[in-house]
Amino acid sequence: MILQSINNIAELCARKGVQNVVISPGSRSAALTLAFARHGSIKTKVIPDERVAGFVGMGMAQYSGQTVALVCTSGSAAYNLAPAVVEAFFQEIPLLVLTADRPKEWIHQQDGQTIYQNELYGKHVKKSFELPADYAHPDTNWYIERVLNEAINLSQTYPKGPVHVNVPIREPFYPTANEKITYDRNVRLVERLATQPTLSPETWHRLQEEFENTSRVLIAVGQLPPQSALWKVLKEFSEEMGVPVLGDIISNIPADDAFVRHHDVCLRPKNHEQLADLQPDLLITVGDSFISKNLKLFLRKFAPARHWHIKPTEQLIDTFQTLSLQVPVEPVYFFQKLLEDIDYQQFVHQDDDSEERTQYREKWLQADRNAQRKLAQFFRQETRWNEFTLVDSLMRSLPENSVLHLANSMPVRYANLVGTSTQVEVFANRGTSGIDGCTSTAVGSAMMTDKLVFLLTGDVSFFYDRNALWHPHLPENLRIVLFNNNGGNIFRLIDGPSAQPELEQYFETRHHTSARNAAEDAGVTYFALDNNTNNHQDMMAAVLTGTVREDAFESIWKQFLVQNGKAKLLEIFTDPVMNGNVFEAYRKMS
Amino acid sequence: MILQSINNIAELCARKGVQNVVISPGSRSAALTLAFARHGSIKTKVIPDERVAGFVGMGMAQYSGQTVALVCTSGSAAYNLAPAVVEAFFQEIPLLVLTADRPKEWIHQQDGQTIYQNELYGKHVKKSFELPADYAHPDTNWYIERVLNEAINLSQTYPKGPVHVNVPIREPFYPTANEKITYDRNVRLVERLATQPTLSPETWHRLQEEFENTSRVLIAVGQLPPQSALWKVLKEFSEEMGVPVLGDIISNIPADDAFVRHHDVCLRPKNHEQLADLQPDLLITVGDSFISKNLKLFLRKFAPARHWHIKPTEQLIDTFQTLSLQVPVEPVYFFQKLLEDIDYQQFVHQDDDSEERTQYREKWLQADRNAQRKLAQFFRQETRWNEFTLVDSLMRSLPENSVLHLANSMPVRYANLVGTSTQVEVFANRGTSGIDGCTSTAVGSAMMTDKLVFLLTGDVSFFYDRNALWHPHLPENLRIVLFNNNGGNIFRLIDGPSAQPELEQYFETRHHTSARNAAEDAGVTYFALDNNTNNHQDMMAAVLTGTVREDAFESIWKQFLVQNGKAKLLEIFTDPVMNGNVFEAYRKMS
Repeated sequence: MILQSINNIAELCARKGVQNVVISPGSRSAALTLAFARHGSIKTKVIPDERVAGFVGMGMAQYSGQTVALVCTSGSAAYNLAPAVVEAFFQEIPLLVLTADRPKEWIHQQDGQTIYQNELYGKHVKKSFELPADYAHPDTNWYIERVLNEAINLSQTYPKGPVHVNVPIREPFYPTANEKITYDRNVRLVERLATQPTLSPETWHRLQEEFENTSRVLIAVGQLPPQSALWKVLKEFSEEMGVPVLGDIISNIPADDAFVRHHDVCLRPKNHEQLADLQPDLLITVGDSFISKNLKLFLRKFAPARHWHIKPTEQLIDTFQTLSLQVPVEPVYFFQKLLEDIDYQQFVHQDDDSEERTQYREKWLQADRNAQRKLAQFFRQETRWNEFTLVDSLMRSLPENSVLHLANSMPVRYANLVGTSTQVEVFANRGTSGIDGCTSTAVGSAMMTDKLVFLLTGDVSFFYDRNALWHPHLPENLRIVLFNNNGGNIFRLIDGPSAQPELEQYFETRHHTSARNAAEDAGVTYFALDNNTNNHQDMMAAVLTGTVREDAFESIWKQFLVQNGKAKLLEIFTDPVMNGNVFEAYRKMS
Repeated sequence: MILQSINNIAELCARKGVQNVVISPGSRSAALTLAFARHGSIKTKVIPDERVAGFVGMGMAQYSGQTVALVCTSGSAAYNLAPAVVEAFFQEIPLLVLTADRPKEWIHQQDGQTIYQNELYGKHVKKSFELPADYAHPDTNWYIERVLNEAINLSQTYPKGPVHVNVPIREPFYPTANEKITYDRNVRLVERLATQPTLSPETWHRLQEEFENTSRVLIAVGQLPPQSALWKVLKEFSEEMGVPVLGDIISNIPADDAFVRHHDVCLRPKNHEQLADLQPDLLITVGDSFISKNLKLFLRKFAPARHWHIKPTEQLIDTFQTLSLQVPVEPVYFFQKLLEDIDYQQFVHQDDDSEERTQYREKWLQADRNAQRKLAQFFRQETRWNEFTLVDSLMRSLPENSVLHLANSMPVRYANLVGTSTQVEVFANRGTSGIDGCTSTAVGSAMMTDKLVFLLTGDVSFFYDRNALWHPHLPENLRIVLFNNNGGNIFRLIDGPSAQPELEQYFETRHHTSARNAAEDAGVTYFALDNNTNNHQDMMAAVLTGTVREDAFESIWKQFLVQNGKAKLLEIFTDPVMNGNVFEAYRKMS
């Protein structure tokens, strides 16, 4: 029984650039599965755990910017995709979520794998569609084609995001043994042109004037995809206009001294009083979420008088509780235009504030250099075996031109403190900041590139998402660095829970599982490091200085980077109490 | 910072009989966690993977009938509970789902772990509440107490089910180091009395008359909790009234020859023509979902003229597409009353159909005996190493008075074919029939009893839910029997997918993972059986005959049953192709 309308979904996807499909096995979804599996222009991955499948697809779309389709069967399968769908929604990643369903007359009839699937994801998709289950009337085919066109177009319309299409399918839906699936090459395509929002000359004049009349302007950049053209413009803007630019690690800020990258260190609460003169009059923000809690606290304490957020979206996002103006245009267009419109010579020479402007930027850069120097000194002196130091070393050992995934909750925080020193593309699930799919997301990334893809993760995140390794598509370029501290160490590192007698049992949830078996089960090459290694002093020295010596770390790291057809996992064991002590010492650092 | 209103939630739960709480670690939920952890009358379990936590809680409530509370932190954590919530909804299991949330002003502000949590579970909860985040006004405390009373009452009101309470909590929410949590012993309790729906004498008269005028009445029983008083009444009713009663294994039908228990065998489509004289005129159904697809096909082909469904619910459930009357009363009340009202002597002697009535029941019992005999013969002759035979042997090896969990998808089908021969309590997640939480549900069951709790599962279900073993509360009475056939063998056993060239890659999703490592990681004692064991012929003989011999199986099974403080897992390896061949032979059996 060939369902032509279902086959045409695969054809439409292929023609509209949805070439990667992640499929979880099921019977109700078989018609979709076969339509995609047999389509010559579609690449499929089959992943049994839908929670993993969702995040792998999300990781593929996150890396490529292309819409990735997810296919699951009916029932709770669709809910297992939800954690990835909601992350995609808030991180604005394009997904086409195709949930097979039984026809609606079977809902709530005690007849297996049938739930209320229509609009299952609530407000966490850009739009939700439901296809008809009968194809006899000619309008139904028009409707199905139209829905798929709209769904894919919407997923790609800025801000991108997940779109849900619920697909009820009637039996029989399997082709007979010799039946050949055909695709209608005349499926109707409806393109949607991309637009660029612009501002009127009057509006530009107003912005320009406000900008020129403000000497203390700070640009802060939240999460942005890698290789944004924005950074080139921002560097020019920063230097010419005397405006400091700071960015969290997930903003993919370049390792360039023209930018402020250690604000999370220099804005520690203990420094707040002495940092009052960093307060901006005008804050300009770009990008999405920020990791640095210290930046948030600082900006709430020393709030700017005005705050412009540059992003072409309807959503009013006010992370710092200071927003005064939504500027819904592309940041590159915004900064380029401002740069062109302001006559620099005139601006600098006529502006009495020009010196203050330059000084303001210099203060930020000075604070950043101080923080960087103090941090380096801290790591040089802190020779105890601990995560923070090790993250610093590893961040400096990453090969150029690799990809880095930072798992929630401590890895992304540690990494944001130490920053990158090489050219890497940085990703993190900061849409909802869950630990539920960090490994799967990195797996998805690795499927879309030949570069080495590193994941820095903790043990709770890793075991939570261990099924990320349970499928036949594990990419050989995946490198998992797992910090195993036997539990959720973050709870010891933040103030509230660390003071509770329930810390170990209810928050850290101590365990003694190693990832060795999980790696073995998945055919992943396994390496381990701990402070009991015989020559761990040498190893630490090598880690800390990056010197090439014939010792355990250097040897392990070299093997770890080798590309020999196998994904690899390096498990580093640390003591949670020691990690807590070292982090406390860092926080008290002068 | 003590949040008295949050603490009182724990007090209210304890006072209203919600004494078991499953907690997943998180910071936003800390106030709830601590309130429950420090309450003397509450038993807590801490489970990191929320998907697992949800199903463990569901399994506890499923076994006990008591409302179990789930506590999770904000963000995608709440979505990870959804698969268990939707299963609880359709299986009518009482849960109190407490999702911690950030105050709503932080939704969609790019500020971490904040999603649209209100009404997150859509139609899959009985009701959804949202608590206030501020407690200054006296009405808020009244409201919080009222909501908790209503939520717990609702979860226990028939039909039971999950209720969602979203709990926004403002910082600061951790107590300071020496702050003592106190509970308001005067929290207000609102009880809700249970009622018993009854029918008027006129209505009874109508039912009685219809019943008396119908000679071919069939009672079919779907999923029911164990130890239902119903079976005693049904036996008497069946014997006195000449009405055959059939029940799937999940109806917890007793191993009693007065009942039809092999309908899934005797109603195979190949027998349909010769079974036309089993067609009922009146079908009376009790309980929830049915597993037997053959029963569904039979009843659709030989539809009864009338169909009464006995269940006190508003929902119109028409699984067989034959329903004509909803009888919204308790089944025990219904059958007892009918039994009392019908004067049996008069009924039998005045009723010309009485002989036909008796004959009709006898035909069903005869068919059942035939099926049972043929099946036994089939297993005696089928000595190849395969799952179906092994399931039969294991079902007959289960100790009296134990608990049996049947995972979806093949285990529950195999077990339904062979039936139970000892007194066991049977559970299966047939609300949505997902494979996502079968192990976790069995873990939850085992937490609520000292009996041995067996889980019969397949490899895909097991690995999908492997985190069921990743927490510190694994009960020692848990016994997992895992049939590992390297993939989703069901797809080879049903007609559609087995004919597709994509069978192994897209449906079975072949893998070669053993559960040995997973068991080791969890501290679970591991046993393995396969057909390469040296003395496997002897072993099979022992399996098949149940004889006590000093061979591998007998020895393994004996060790497997021992209670020595450790949960145990027995992995039985079979060949999927062989399983397919044997099942095909069974289907063709005359």
